[in-house]
Amino acid sequence: MTRTIDLNSDLGEGYGAWSMGDDPAMLDIVSSANVACGFHAGDPLTIRATVERAVARGVAVGAHVSYPDRVGFGRRPMDVTSVELTSDVIYQIGALQGIAKVAGTRVTYVKPHGALYNTIANDARQADAVIAAIKEIDPTLVLMGLAGTQILTRAADAGLATVAEAFGDRAYTPEGQLVSRREKGAVLHDADAVAARMLRLATEGMIEAIDGSILRLQAQSICVHGDSAGAVEMARRIREELVAGGVNVTPFTKAA
Amino acid sequence: MTRTIDLNSDLGEGYGAWSMGDDPAMLDIVSSANVACGFHAGDPLTIRATVERAVARGVAVGAHVSYPDRVGFGRRPMDVTSVELTSDVIYQIGALQGIAKVAGTRVTYVKPHGALYNTIANDARQADAVIAAIKEIDPTLVLMGLAGTQILTRAADAGLATVAEAFGDRAYTPEGQLVSRREKGAVLHDADAVAARMLRLATEGMIEAIDGSILRLQAQSICVHGDSAGAVEMARRIREELVAGGVNVTPFTKAA
Amino acid sequence: MTRTIDLNSDLGEGYGAWSMGDDPAMLDIVSSANVACGFHAGDPLTIRATVERAVARGVAVGAHVSYPDRVGFGRRPMDVTSVELTSDVIYQIGALQGIAKVAGTRVTYVKPHGALYNTIANDARQADAVIAAIKEIDPTLVLMGLAGTQILTRAADAGLATVAEAFGDRAYTPEGQLVSRREKGAVLHDADAVAARMLRLATEGMIEAIDGSILRLQAQSICVHGDSAGAVEMARRIREELVAGGVNVTPFTKAA
Amino acid sequence: MTRTIDLNSDLGEGYGAWSMGDDPAMLDIVSSANVACGFHAGDPLTIRATVERAVARGVAVGAHVSYPDRVGFGRRPMDVTSVELTSDVIYQIGALQGIAKVAGTRVTYVKPHGALYNTIANDARQADAVIAAIKEIDPTLVLMGLAGTQILTRAADAGLATVAEAFGDRAYTPEGQLVSRREKGAVLHDADAVAARMLRLATEGMIEAIDGSILRLQAQSICVHGDSAGAVEMARRIREELVAGGVNVTPFTKAA
Repeated sequence: MTRTIDLNSDLGEGYGAWSMGDDPAMLDIVSSANVACGFHAGDPLTIRATVERAVARGVAVGAHVSYPDRVGFGRRPMDVTSVELTSDVIYQIGALQGIAKVAGTRVTYVKPHGALYNTIANDARQADAVIAAIKEIDPTLVLMGLAGTQILTRAADAGLATVAEAFGDRAYTPEGQLVSRREKGAVLHDADAVAARMLRLATEGMIEAIDGSILRLQAQSICVHGDSAGAVEMARRIREELVAGGVNVTPFTKAA
Repeated sequence: MTRTIDLNSDLGEGYGAWSMGDDPAMLDIVSSANVACGFHAGDPLTIRATVERAVARGVAVGAHVSYPDRVGFGRRPMDVTSVELTSDVIYQIGALQGIAKVAGTRVTYVKPHGALYNTIANDARQADAVIAAIKEIDPTLVLMGLAGTQILTRAADAGLATVAEAFGDRAYTPEGQLVSRREKGAVLHDADAVAARMLRLATEGMIEAIDGSILRLQAQSICVHGDSAGAVEMARRIREELVAGGVNVTPFTKAA
Repeated sequence: MTRTIDLNSDLGEGYGAWSMGDDPAMLDIVSSANVACGFHAGDPLTIRATVERAVARGVAVGAHVSYPDRVGFGRRPMDVTSVELTSDVIYQIGALQGIAKVAGTRVTYVKPHGALYNTIANDARQADAVIAAIKEIDPTLVLMGLAGTQILTRAADAGLATVAEAFGDRAYTPEGQLVSRREKGAVLHDADAVAARMLRLATEGMIEAIDGSILRLQAQSICVHGDSAGAVEMARRIREELVAGGVNVTPFTKAA
Repeated sequence: MTRTIDLNSDLGEGYGAWSMGDDPAMLDIVSSANVACGFHAGDPLTIRATVERAVARGVAVGAHVSYPDRVGFGRRPMDVTSVELTSDVIYQIGALQGIAKVAGTRVTYVKPHGALYNTIANDARQADAVIAAIKEIDPTLVLMGLAGTQILTRAADAGLATVAEAFGDRAYTPEGQLVSRREKGAVLHDADAVAARMLRLATEGMIEAIDGSILRLQAQSICVHGDSAGAVEMARRIREELVAGGVNVTPFTKAA
């Protein structure tokens, strides 16, 4: 039996004259591209170039939807109303769908970005607003969320397909939560060790927690970063280790 | 034989806490709504409310695409590159398509806004960039432009369906051009006279030019405004006069 | 002895083609103008016109600083960092100072807007970030805040002059807090009654709480609104009642 | 007699999470920093950090004012009205003045950015709008413009002090104009040759034109770039060559 896993990364996050990360390099590594939709990053030209490159490499395209906060890069919690949030998410998905169609593909999943991602993990009201947006615009869209968080069960209860992701470079608590970035050891820097962890996760569904205990973690996708040379190198190492270990790195969704 | 004509107006042009015009009133008058797409006006919540109201009244939805210039309301000429413009137009149409789908309709036409509308009437490069965007995202979309301008023939040559519009409240030169707003008499203020002019246009294809000569003018749609109480009243008079004259006010396009 | 009080209102809150409220009417009523600085509302041209009109009427100019959230009109709580907030406030005050100088006046006070106003009433971290900004750019600027809230004592402890404001159209708890808008009776609609309340506040320092008890309330300024015809009328009534009652309506600060 | 010249560069052009160029490196090279003011680039936190670093290195601070076009980085010509442009420039200068004051310095000059820079070189209407803004907010501000263009004489006629700049990496026509970027040889890439050219310019007021003829060019400042490693290296070489040649690299203005 062949194991498969998805590698995803946040891409298309430039804005006009500003670039962010090494998208071409990452598109040779990942199988799914979380593409910025213009609210935290991504102007139409940048988005289009990213989606076209993703298509050329067989990488799946997801909508990386955000609060409307460009100067804050979508990282600042905002207390938006439910109707605002639902409308904002519909607008962003629609815009990316338009660009995807032009590029010969379609949007297959949605991954909320930054502060929105973190907020909906726990905030039922905002979670429901995002779920409503997805169901209204295209109920076949898959919601990507953090493994072990309520948003995934909430979305599944609402009838959405979901995919759980793990973070390659983050430590986990024995309970399967991410160790807070404020804690020592929260972020892992050894690319070889991270790659080995991710291979074990993909093949055994197990990961070593920060206290050394072994944790069962269900994740169909691994999030990798491309915002520095070191991050790209770690992502490449993860992919190589997975492939060498007989894991098929492939999108969890297929464009029709 | 029943004559038909379309009445269109720029709607959904609020932004967040700011409103613009009387959309509910206008949606009882027009048959086609040029809905702002977020670049000159229109936040997602405002756009959605406008589209939902249009659907409830059987009003067709068009994408009122613009340069990215919110503070200038899209009224200032901008020398954008062709790839920027094409991408910007695709993004805006896609976003509105997403909202239209959620509202149970679809976008059937595109009307460029403000400075973009005026520029592409004469600037072949920018015209082609807009035409390319439409063809790429949905070649069945109809391009609305000013009767008698090159954009319409250019779009038709490129294979797009087009619709020509006349302005109810504007004077025409004997050559069928709009009299410049800088000229005396360019804007008409007498609602009854305007209504009579539009009835003649709809039934005979004729309009009196500013010098009193009678001009043949092909127009399948009449643009009316809703930005003041007087404008709404003039629009209402035009509709009443058309209906009283046996003209069927109806969208030139049908949502599937 | 002559009693004096200040009347303030949020002005300059248009943006480009969008207007908000009736600034010219309000500038005939108030003695202090809280002028938007571009982050929640107010483009440079609108701001400048407002400040020039304020100068012509002898109305004091304050900086109505906000979170950077134009589409949300600064009404949505945002979890910004302290250095971001301090820098944002300095930038906004500086921009308004530049326009004030050109208009022949100067900025004499700062009133945070919307969600920022509400947040700093209780959030010490964000309050300190705002206080730091004011102290750094001009420690003679007066901070306007809600009567009875911690921001005023916190700012005073930091060495800033402060002014407490009351809301004409809001009910108060017996403890001197605003009754939440979610409660019945929180907003007052009877212009005559409101005017009488404000006269009593200005002359006796007393206001009737929602339970009928009489409350001592220190306020050097009364906030009035101009966002509807009714609001303008209530503001005018308040001014008339104050003047008729021998109260001098005058800015709490003087431009140098 | 000691020759002196100024070296200037566009700095503070990051925006939120996005960076642009190597500001710390450039601040060790230049004597004047053209600091973005938020309209094409530069959020308040980035601007503040840049100004503080400039102060620490004794680098003069100028306002790098722009059209309001962040996604286009201020590079796209916009047909703004004169009152809009004047107000936009005042707002930007004021904002930077506020940040400069907090950082312990003051803004001493204004250099329009990108498309605005190019437009006002020839467009008298927009030039006058910028000149008016400077005269209104602070008539002691120096206007920096391209050597040999009308904006400098126009500003001088209006009573402003001006400074002419040359571009280190650009070829000149025999008439003293920049060779268009569309022409072959317009941009120079040999750092040593450029450095030698600039030393000659600084010491003799002469520069070799693209046809080999020798041109007299009055320039008190040289513009250098920091947007790539190669650009920073070229800027460093220019400075070294000037210093080795006995030229004093120093701001043309002094903060009070």
